[in-house]
Amino acid sequence: MQIVKDVLFTKLEGVHLPKTNSGKERFELLVNTAEDLFTKSNFFDVSVSDICRAAHTAVGTFYIYFETKTDIYRYLVYWYRRQIKLNLYENIAKCTTRRQKEREGIKSFIKFSVEHPMLYNIIWGSLSVDKQLFEDYYVSFAKNYARALASDHEEINAEDVSTLAYSLMGISSFLGLKAIFEEMTEPQIDEMVDNALSSMLRNGIFKSNQ
Amino acid sequence: MQIVKDVLFTKLEGVHLPKTNSGKERFELLVNTAEDLFTKSNFFDVSVSDICRAAHTAVGTFYIYFETKTDIYRYLVYWYRRQIKLNLYENIAKCTTRRQKEREGIKSFIKFSVEHPMLYNIIWGSLSVDKQLFEDYYVSFAKNYARALASDHEEINAEDVSTLAYSLMGISSFLGLKAIFEEMTEPQIDEMVDNALSSMLRNGIFKSNQ
Repeated sequence: MQIVKDVLFTKLEGVHLPKTNSGKERFELLVNTAEDLFTKSNFFDVSVSDICRAAHTAVGTFYIYFETKTDIYRYLVYWYRRQIKLNLYENIAKCTTRRQKEREGIKSFIKFSVEHPMLYNIIWGSLSVDKQLFEDYYVSFAKNYARALASDHEEINAEDVSTLAYSLMGISSFLGLKAIFEEMTEPQIDEMVDNALSSMLRNGIFKSNQ
Repeated sequence: MQIVKDVLFTKLEGVHLPKTNSGKERFELLVNTAEDLFTKSNFFDVSVSDICRAAHTAVGTFYIYFETKTDIYRYLVYWYRRQIKLNLYENIAKCTTRRQKEREGIKSFIKFSVEHPMLYNIIWGSLSVDKQLFEDYYVSFAKNYARALASDHEEINAEDVSTLAYSLMGISSFLGLKAIFEEMTEPQIDEMVDNALSSMLRNGIFKSNQ
């Protein structure tokens, strides 16, 4: 486990957040253990008993916090989503233009992916676990992204900010994969985004109108 | 089942292609049934017996063609890959410039995704079934794409064709998702690619150098 899922957040259906410090510890342990097992094996081959056994926790404790196995998975999806957002906000805080925000935002996502490659297992795996969860994740991500792009419309060519948002999400996700496959270092990621990608986003990819 | 997996291809490890017409029929039936069950349920909850029962085929017949359940899954991944390629070649056959090829190629992929949304379950699902299969799929796809882009280098700004290939793959994949989520029609897909995306690929996304 690379990171501790130590910050709780908005209410999610089927998830009952702990109220005490010791409850918080047990909750975090269950979430971390579940992620570990889901990604080492897969969602379907892991049972609630497996999670509890690995976390040295009573099965009854699991059900205090999560109504079903799918609910702890949903928690993980939303945890990643929030973590990606926090990471993004931190990295674009000092940016003053949309171009800087995109460059730093994409870098921040790719670096996060390399540190947490399990992100792909959890998010893309949600397609088999709960198709609606997968769709809701991306639809709401795209909606917020499009809104952010629209708020900087004076800097942007695109009128269709939704298409632009999905395109940029696709670029980030696939450059994250590239970085994982090629075991890229941080300077290599910076170089890829600062040069190849920035030039593409600034000038397009074709030399002349053909 | 929307399409019949009726064309066989290159040898794959763990897959023994049928040699007779009746063998071909049984093979196709097994592949179609497996896909149906894997996507309605998921790879892990479906057994070889389940596939054979649904296909009204003896379990022994399954093992004539596939050494394991993972091998029929691998067959499906490669089947989609080849189908995407064939579909692409057909749609870009008349294009004379890289810009036309990209526009028609991306359209063709998005339309294929809308017709076969199960593509995402199979390809992205491969991350949980066999991580190496997932990685090989994208690494080899990107390599071929980059080679194609490099062969038209005089039309393209990018020096780093690998980054460009991953970016374009990401754009296609995510616009495919958008089209599925929004239940887009063919004219809507054409409009999205011909306008929003083409302008982005031609001019970049930012109004001025900021």
